[in-house]
Amino acid sequence: MIGIDDIRAAEQRIRDRVRHTPVIEANQLKTPVAEGAQLMLKLELLQVTGSFKARGATNKLLATPPDVLDKGIVAASGGNHGLATAQAGYMAGVQVTIFLPGNVSPEKVEKLHQWGAETVIVGTVWDDANAAALERVRKTGAAYFHPFADPLVVAGQGTVGLELLHQLPQVDTVIVAIGGGGLISGVATAIKALTPHVRVIGVEAEGSPTLKNSLKAGGVITLDRVTTSIPTLACSRTDERIYELVDQHVDDIVLVTDTQMLDAAEWLWFEMGLAADLSGVAAVTALHCGQINATAGEKICAVVCGAGQDGLASGAG
Amino acid sequence: MIGIDDIRAAEQRIRDRVRHTPVIEANQLKTPVAEGAQLMLKLELLQVTGSFKARGATNKLLATPPDVLDKGIVAASGGNHGLATAQAGYMAGVQVTIFLPGNVSPEKVEKLHQWGAETVIVGTVWDDANAAALERVRKTGAAYFHPFADPLVVAGQGTVGLELLHQLPQVDTVIVAIGGGGLISGVATAIKALTPHVRVIGVEAEGSPTLKNSLKAGGVITLDRVTTSIPTLACSRTDERIYELVDQHVDDIVLVTDTQMLDAAEWLWFEMGLAADLSGVAAVTALHCGQINATAGEKICAVVCGAGQDGLASGAG
Repeated sequence: MIGIDDIRAAEQRIRDRVRHTPVIEANQLKTPVAEGAQLMLKLELLQVTGSFKARGATNKLLATPPDVLDKGIVAASGGNHGLATAQAGYMAGVQVTIFLPGNVSPEKVEKLHQWGAETVIVGTVWDDANAAALERVRKTGAAYFHPFADPLVVAGQGTVGLELLHQLPQVDTVIVAIGGGGLISGVATAIKALTPHVRVIGVEAEGSPTLKNSLKAGGVITLDRVTTSIPTLACSRTDERIYELVDQHVDDIVLVTDTQMLDAAEWLWFEMGLAADLSGVAAVTALHCGQINATAGEKICAVVCGAGQDGLASGAG
Repeated sequence: MIGIDDIRAAEQRIRDRVRHTPVIEANQLKTPVAEGAQLMLKLELLQVTGSFKARGATNKLLATPPDVLDKGIVAASGGNHGLATAQAGYMAGVQVTIFLPGNVSPEKVEKLHQWGAETVIVGTVWDDANAAALERVRKTGAAYFHPFADPLVVAGQGTVGLELLHQLPQVDTVIVAIGGGGLISGVATAIKALTPHVRVIGVEAEGSPTLKNSLKAGGVITLDRVTTSIPTLACSRTDERIYELVDQHVDDIVLVTDTQMLDAAEWLWFEMGLAADLSGVAAVTALHCGQINATAGEKICAVVCGAGQDGLASGAG
């Protein structure tokens, strides 16, 4: 699907349109995680529109011919990809329409409107919204921005990996959340091309083990049921090309529950002052709940990939 | 009161007990501030306990003799200094008692308890709580941690300035919030000792212009009324030694209203995914509301000095 050259090209293309996000060491913790290891957090929740999705959407935008963009941009997204697409279009002066399933949060819809997008609510799951988006594209010739199954989107997300290696050249293990697999396939491609000894571990919601089950089956499967309540992690089927990248480059995938992610989000707010959404905190969750064990001296980087208020409700702030 | 050597000593003393907080460029903004300039944010809201106060309290703790610490630590604080003191004591195994005025938020009290502190609510303003704290110190011989009028506390806060200069050697202007003046006096001392050409600008609440009015009067004054609703910025009188440092090293002080801080906190959450409290966002506010104007190409660093949920209520996240 893509290789390191595509990610390097993406980095050049988007560098003046997205943020270089910082890394912070998660030390001085009241309730330590990954004890004995050094835990670094890549603060991708501080990215434009609050998530890594800005990288992929911006790369797609800048590689799409102007005559196609003139017909507008269409995407289907439970949230962060929609915001990123809306922002990229807003900055470029292109009309964006986002198709959403009914379970999207009102806050995300409001934010889409703040970024100038039109929103259309269709059906109850992402597949319904996406079918309507594709129908719109057929009728209008608009550019279609898939949330993950697009080489330009994956290459854009992969720039997180390049940036992270530059910031943490001694890293041993990188942990990344998986929804559709766009982020981890890009990040793992970058990391394995440059530092093949670095372990890349994916984290899926127990209620949406799309890639875990596909790897087990030896090919892409469709989940019978998706039971996670987190829209940004719900995905019943990944893309064949993403599957290939994950199969080649990802060392392991672990599962965490929605409740474990909520606990980790509250921990992250209390300990670090970081307001992450539940998909954003998934990578940290795998350490917090013990699904990934650290070895003494291991340098671990967890990508905190999306901002949100999920961990703040308890009033611990 | 203190000089650069005290701040360097503090940095050595606390380096393994507090966090090295990152800097991020605030670019790609929907509603730009400081247009034409480069705006950098020093993310001190990601410090241990959610504010810069951990630096001063930790420096004080590590410089206090063990036989005094054995009698416990006492402080009076509307919030962040209390948390920082509680955390420092918790990590060192020392009993901490925090005296608070009645207007403290229940969330802060809960967090103090999570850090193992005893809390005592006294009176309606900080002076009432502080009088009770001092009475306790007289009776028990406990260590007293003043929120700002203490050379060790000021030197600890000053490490923000050292760290920031190391991260941004080309900075032109540094903007810092003022409550009692502990942070700005430390930061300005560090910056003017090493890079005298860098402008240091303080930001006070319009309802608590303690240092602004003192500088105007040519000496420390007591405010007749403190009308800001932000406990962490309310201070009717600063310390003589802090006044001297500010008079020597701070180039200007500007005022912002509580409402302007709320607007800036919402802006910071929408644009950057950062959850700051109103004192934490004060420095950014001065740019956001136009109280500080930037020149073309100017490199500005605003210290975002405290975490909180103040900007999140609108549901813009």
